[in-house]
Amino acid sequence: MSVTTLDSFRTEKGVDLRRVPVAWKAWGRLNASRDNVVIVCHALTGNTDVDDWWGPLLGPGRALDSDRFFVICFNVAGSPYGTVSPVTTSPDTGEPYGVAFPDFSIRDTVALHRMVLDEIGVTGVALAIGASMGGMQVLEWGHHTDLVKALCPIAVGGRHSAWCIAWSASQRQAIISDPKWKGGHYPADDPPVHGLSVARMMAMISYRSQSSFEKRFGRARMMDNPGEPMAVESYLQYQGEKLVARFDANCYIALTRQMDSHDVAYGRGNYPEVLGDIKQPTLVVGIDSDILYPLAEQQELVQHMPSAEMAVLTSPDGHDAFLIDFEQLSAHLRPWMARVVIDGENRRGSIHNE
Amino acid sequence: MSVTTLDSFRTEKGVDLRRVPVAWKAWGRLNASRDNVVIVCHALTGNTDVDDWWGPLLGPGRALDSDRFFVICFNVAGSPYGTVSPVTTSPDTGEPYGVAFPDFSIRDTVALHRMVLDEIGVTGVALAIGASMGGMQVLEWGHHTDLVKALCPIAVGGRHSAWCIAWSASQRQAIISDPKWKGGHYPADDPPVHGLSVARMMAMISYRSQSSFEKRFGRARMMDNPGEPMAVESYLQYQGEKLVARFDANCYIALTRQMDSHDVAYGRGNYPEVLGDIKQPTLVVGIDSDILYPLAEQQELVQHMPSAEMAVLTSPDGHDAFLIDFEQLSAHLRPWMARVVIDGENRRGSIHNE
Repeated sequence: MSVTTLDSFRTEKGVDLRRVPVAWKAWGRLNASRDNVVIVCHALTGNTDVDDWWGPLLGPGRALDSDRFFVICFNVAGSPYGTVSPVTTSPDTGEPYGVAFPDFSIRDTVALHRMVLDEIGVTGVALAIGASMGGMQVLEWGHHTDLVKALCPIAVGGRHSAWCIAWSASQRQAIISDPKWKGGHYPADDPPVHGLSVARMMAMISYRSQSSFEKRFGRARMMDNPGEPMAVESYLQYQGEKLVARFDANCYIALTRQMDSHDVAYGRGNYPEVLGDIKQPTLVVGIDSDILYPLAEQQELVQHMPSAEMAVLTSPDGHDAFLIDFEQLSAHLRPWMARVVIDGENRRGSIHNE
Repeated sequence: MSVTTLDSFRTEKGVDLRRVPVAWKAWGRLNASRDNVVIVCHALTGNTDVDDWWGPLLGPGRALDSDRFFVICFNVAGSPYGTVSPVTTSPDTGEPYGVAFPDFSIRDTVALHRMVLDEIGVTGVALAIGASMGGMQVLEWGHHTDLVKALCPIAVGGRHSAWCIAWSASQRQAIISDPKWKGGHYPADDPPVHGLSVARMMAMISYRSQSSFEKRFGRARMMDNPGEPMAVESYLQYQGEKLVARFDANCYIALTRQMDSHDVAYGRGNYPEVLGDIKQPTLVVGIDSDILYPLAEQQELVQHMPSAEMAVLTSPDGHDAFLIDFEQLSAHLRPWMARVVIDGENRRGSIHNE
């Protein structure tokens, strides 16, 4: 992982930050024209370890081919994995920002990452790809028309729906209701672990589906083992505890608020028209069992984005299918990328083939 | 509301309770043969005020015709609205049962209500009808073959799925994580209001759908009013606070556990065969946007219950459609009841028509 520290950054709402770290990780090499870049955008509790969570898609010969592309993943502002966030020490106070961390929009995060790309000297992005919160960033990258040539937003819509905001709000409330949250001013060694754990339990439900839970757990005998929780209950509690060990409560609040801010049309005009302005070749991927971002949201994107086409992952696994069904994802990505993704290597390849 | 106090009740798990109150409310009059009874079963946070929550279905000339039927609704064991529950004073200790309230299964609740019907001298039940937790009771009433002649379970399956248990478990965890819960031993004047409120916020999501939230709230301008929560967030918080004023945390835990126990086959044999033993004419009602109890669960019931037929409410409102779309519900109920619901009045009506 690398960390690039920017001198300053001003958020959409006009808050100025100084000495702003941005963490990133990359695979492959920049070509001479510095335009063989693939940006991979991570989801809510993700990080820059694309090789961990999208391993089968990344590497030599794979869809995100590190022999051909310079694949880069930036950590999102607000996330505890290296980029500026509530757990970052403020240069002004010498203390972590904590609850004073300013609101970042998805647009802010993309603008921040753009500054690092500029610093690296990137001249072209062949593809921006990501799912869920990552997909929101992809759509914002679509407005960097001077740089970004193709888009692949997955399991996302053009603006966060009331439904998704409801899920986010309930999860934030679980944290805020934990007395240990203390208005966000909790000590590092005594954070609101119960609230964050409950938030994660809720989130895990939203990431899956009725049929995936049924297949995996069914009614693992509660009444035969009175006193024992059911399998699915233990599983969720375990997932809650696991997140607590690797995440921060104020970061969770900041990131879910950032997701709620997602609206490509905000301040830009009429929603369908703003989508119409995203003219890059785009592969919109939906998941047929996704209850958070149902297919109707991806269909809406394809309807209004002039160069968009749709691919559907057929999966019982719900929203999380983008972290599970690599084969289908790869099968949709490869032929589309072969057709539309243009970069230096690709152009040379075309010449070679003639 | 009436309260019938039973001398004793033994739960499935063998716990004996003494002086057990059962609250109920009734409309219409018992006929001479005491068999014109319709049992209406309420849902999780419901009560016996059927005229409040199912008003358009109840009354003279309506689907649940109080000129023809003796319509009765019992409060469920574990609920704070009059039947024995954590807020009931134990005759043994002189204190509320609290967290020591024993596990009740859906089957226990129905057995308890049966004892009151026997005390009233009811000889036949023309119809048992209810949705959600109420539908679970309806399916258990189906095993009282000596008494119950027809069934209408709505928005429910034959056993609680892992998916629904996941929702329940997360909501319980929200309560249990509230330090004011104190292992269930909270004082009456300082209950775990935050935990219960968060649980309700989560539940409200599960009762609706993506499209109903979208239609009602959309993206009511958060970023234009910085600091203001979004409309849907305020709505959920309000719903959470509203429940806290009328419900008890230990009751909420007891009732969601009771719902999780729902499995018509438990201790009776093979699931499809046990459903096959429910031979009464049955109208199974599903809601096409219900994410908790999807149509597949009602189709499963109809597939295995020999005299069951299916009706689908077409609604954007999710699970809650059973409390909203009275017209469709009534339109399905009336012709089916005209065909299958038999009672003294009905028989006289038939003679009159010949």
